[in-house]
This record gives sequence, C-alpha cells and structure tokens, in this order.
Amino acid sequence: MMRAACVIGLGSMGYGAAISLLRAGFDVRGVDRNSVALERFRAAGGTTAATPAEGVRGAETAFIFVVDANQTDEVLFGASGAAPALAPGSIVVACATVPPAFVEKLAQRLAEMNILMLDAPVSGGSAKAAAGEMTIMAAGAAEAFSKAEPFLRAIASKVYRLGDMPGAGSRVKMINQLLAGAHIAAAAEAMALGLKLGLDPHQLYEVIANSAGSSWMFQNRVPHILAGDYTPRSAIDIFVKDLGIVLEAGEALDFPVPIAEAAHRQFAAASAKGLGREDDAAVIKVYAEAAQVDLPPRRAG
Amino acid sequence: MMRAACVIGLGSMGYGAAISLLRAGFDVRGVDRNSVALERFRAAGGTTAATPAEGVRGAETAFIFVVDANQTDEVLFGASGAAPALAPGSIVVACATVPPAFVEKLAQRLAEMNILMLDAPVSGGSAKAAAGEMTIMAAGAAEAFSKAEPFLRAIASKVYRLGDMPGAGSRVKMINQLLAGAHIAAAAEAMALGLKLGLDPHQLYEVIANSAGSSWMFQNRVPHILAGDYTPRSAIDIFVKDLGIVLEAGEALDFPVPIAEAAHRQFAAASAKGLGREDDAAVIKVYAEAAQVDLPPRRAG
Repeated sequence: MMRAACVIGLGSMGYGAAISLLRAGFDVRGVDRNSVALERFRAAGGTTAATPAEGVRGAETAFIFVVDANQTDEVLFGASGAAPALAPGSIVVACATVPPAFVEKLAQRLAEMNILMLDAPVSGGSAKAAAGEMTIMAAGAAEAFSKAEPFLRAIASKVYRLGDMPGAGSRVKMINQLLAGAHIAAAAEAMALGLKLGLDPHQLYEVIANSAGSSWMFQNRVPHILAGDYTPRSAIDIFVKDLGIVLEAGEALDFPVPIAEAAHRQFAAASAKGLGREDDAAVIKVYAEAAQVDLPPRRAG
Repeated sequence: MMRAACVIGLGSMGYGAAISLLRAGFDVRGVDRNSVALERFRAAGGTTAATPAEGVRGAETAFIFVVDANQTDEVLFGASGAAPALAPGSIVVACATVPPAFVEKLAQRLAEMNILMLDAPVSGGSAKAAAGEMTIMAAGAAEAFSKAEPFLRAIASKVYRLGDMPGAGSRVKMINQLLAGAHIAAAAEAMALGLKLGLDPHQLYEVIANSAGSSWMFQNRVPHILAGDYTPRSAIDIFVKDLGIVLEAGEALDFPVPIAEAAHRQFAAASAKGLGREDDAAVIKVYAEAAQVDLPPRRAG
C-alpha cells in the first residue's frame, strides 16, 4: 500500500508540492475550496477530497499550504477540519507564512491531540515548487522530522533544520519576508525614480543587476516591470500580510522596523488602489501615479 | 615618453585606480591632503604632487576620486586647483558620487575652458579597485570616451556607456546608491530583529543568503556584523551623503522616496551617535541600542 499524504491548499506552492509528491510515488489527496484548482490536480493524476477531514483520512502527513493563520486554523479546526480526522502520531506540516506566536500555539494544540507538527514555511516561487525544489525553513521535534523526511525530500531541494522548537521556522521566514518586501518596494522606488529622471529602464536594470545595488528580488521582479506584465506570481496582498506580521512582531517587542513600515505602507497603498491581486511588482504603480511617471507598456507576448 | 595621468584623491577607490594605472605602465601622479596616503602611493612606486595644479601638469587625464561635490569643486577650481593647469583638450574623469545637476554644470564649466569631461561614478569596492576591476557608470562625448579609453581600461573591468550627456552616469549611480543604502539598512533591521527574536545570527545569515530575501549588500555587509568588525570599508557618512542626494532629487522632482527616506534616517541617526566613520554595517547599532539587542562581539583576528 502506498504511503498517503494530503495537501490542503492547491495554490502555486501547494500545487507544486502536490505534484512533486505524486511524482515521488505517494498517494496524494488534494483539497482546495476552488474547483478549478481541484480539476487541475485531478488532470495531473491526483486524487481530490471535498473537505480537509476527508482528505487526511489515512494520511500520514498533512501539508497545509493555505494563505495565512486564519485559513490554517480553519482547515484544521473548522467545520470538517483536518485535526480531528488525523490519526494519532500523524504529522501536520504547517507551510503558510504565519505569526511565530500563532504556530507555537498551534503546535501545543496539536500535541494535545497526539499529532506532531513541523513549523515549515517555504520559499522559492512556483517554478521551483513545481520542480520539487522549494526551500523549507523548518523547526520541530526530531520525531516529526524523521517521519516527515521522505515527504519533505520529494518537495524540497533544501530543508533548513532550525531546531526542535516550533516557531523558529516562522521567525526566520518572517525575517526573509521583511527583506523580500523591502527589496521589492525599493526596486519599485528605484525604477520609478529612474524613469522620472529620463533614464532608459532596460539599461538601468542591466547596470544595477550587475552592481552593488542588486538583490534577488530586483533581478526577479524588475523584468515584470520592464515587460509591463503584472500577472500575479506572488500578489501585492501577500506582502500586505507578511510585512503586517513583521510590524506586529516589532510592536510586540517594542522594536522599531522603519524600513519594513515604509515598505508596508507602499503595498497597502497599492492594495487600496485595487491592485491587491496583481503581481507584487505592481507596487511601482503607486510611485508612477504619485509622480506622473509612464511605466513600460505591456510587451506583446 | 609615457602618457601621464593624475589621480586626485587617494582613498580606497582612488588608490586602487592609481596603482592600476601604474601597473598598466602610465606615469601616474597622486594628489591627496593626507600625507599617509601620499606615502603609501610613493611606496607603491608612484609619484606624488603637493597640489592638484602641480599634479595635472602635462597629464592627459585627471581622475577625481574625492568624496563629494564640494571637494570636486575645490580640487578643480580652488586655490592651486587642477582646472586652470590642465592643457586644452585634456580630460577630467569625475568619479565622486555627486548630484547629477552638479556634474552637468561642471561639464559646462570645463567645456568653456576646452577641457573634456566624463561623468563617471564608480562602484565595486576597494578590492576590485586595487585589482583594476572596478565598474564605471560613464556618460560623456564620444571624443572624451575615446581619449580616456586606455586609462579606463587600466582601472575597470566594466565600463557602462550611458550616452553622451554628462549627468546620466550620476543618475544611474544615484539609483544604485538608493538601493545599496536601503539594502544595508534593511539588512541591519532584519539581523537586529532576528537577534531580538533569539535566532542564531549565523544560521539566519546562511538561510537568508540562499533565499529570496538576499541582496548583494546583505551578503557583503552582514559578515561584518557577524564578525563584530566595523572597520570602515565604506563609512556610514557616505550613505548619509548619497541617500541625501536621493532625497534632494526626490524633493526637486516632487517624487516620493519613502524607502530611501527611512534608510537615510537610520544612517543619520548612526552618524549622530558618533558612528559616522565606522563601517556602514554599523547602522545596526542604531537598532541594537533602541531595542536592547546584544550584537555579536568582535571575533578574535
């Protein structure tokens, strides 16, 4: 009998994890509220279930690839939630970017039900996810790691083990998101100012990408701006949420985070303009509108 | 007879340019206010002069490697300045990071004296400079480029030609500095928050350096923090100045630069604490003091 895993949330990262698990030979059940996502996974050879509770029945491991803490709570403990349906000794791998304090409480709550948990936010983007090459920033008990290992190996090329206390994975991910969000907003500010100054944006990109001002996000997102293509790979609202988590942590610790705050304001302004579901590079539209800058038009495909 | 160049300003970048020109076989005169810098250059086989006017006599090209616009003005037009001593048809290569409007006026002023000019800010750090491998972001007339070419080839591995109008080089450099400064401040904010959260800073560095939150500056400067080593490779006050240029440009264009502003405030706060001449990574001390975070101690050499 094949070992079974359930993937709850078939967005870009969850779908990539689910097909990577399929490829590795596991019995994989996909769960999502969106029927198009379910259809796509069935077309790829997967099995789907109508609710988290059905999806996890008989599964050793449940991967939670939903968007945030509220949804994580809902799919585990809401109506037809997964937690009561999981067998004792099974594992929840919590992959959403959530506040560290939330995931600590979640681990306790699951432990009371004899369910193991890995605090395991992911990174890498949809292409790497589909290739089974995401990066996982994981923390949890040694037993959880060893039971989850064959599943993790199928979806990730890199698993950072950040200790045995849930929370450390989400803390490291939060720091990554602080930087990622700040770098996208800075890239938008820089490219828009360059346009305002009359510089050629393609030449500007080429110089900066090879200079000390470069970042992973600059190299990844500015091409979207140059192509005028704001199809969401990762949306504005993700950074409204993730930088919001940073701001909450800063407030709770009385720790000033002025760069994260400035970046959060730009993403929030973009969302308020109705751009929340566009690609996060669309934060440049906030600058373009404020300063009457013409952005590169959509390049013909 | 060897072709002669003069390098005014023998700091880390200017010294690197001067010894690279020497290595390439040029007759190089170094000028600096600092006698230690002059002595170092003489020990490396160079000739020195007491004033810019003396240094440029007979030189085809004068490289200006001073810190800012005021010093650039002073070494060219002040007492014993270089401009009146340069032969018609010779070239000034202006390498300091200065406001684009300043360098445009400078080019006009020199043109009236029949002196060519390249607007040519540099990047790459002292190690690359010493190896003759800096990056130059240059703009100026074709004639200036062709006359300067053998000298530029001796000091740079990459020369971006950004058009024939002086100002474009300084505009691109300004955008680079916006990003570089924002990324250093963001790196400091991220590492300090990670420490406050109890994360191991070495592990945090390792994860982020391999994730989407990475930047050229994160990878270059965070090791200084981990080693507790704030010996200046590039000082806090450089970014007080360079981000100040960005803020001025934003104000002049009515263009909002909130990320640059937030970063500038952190560098200015560091300078106000007396850290202006420390390495720019010392901006983390502003966070550490505000939030009672212990930074990694100085690692024994």
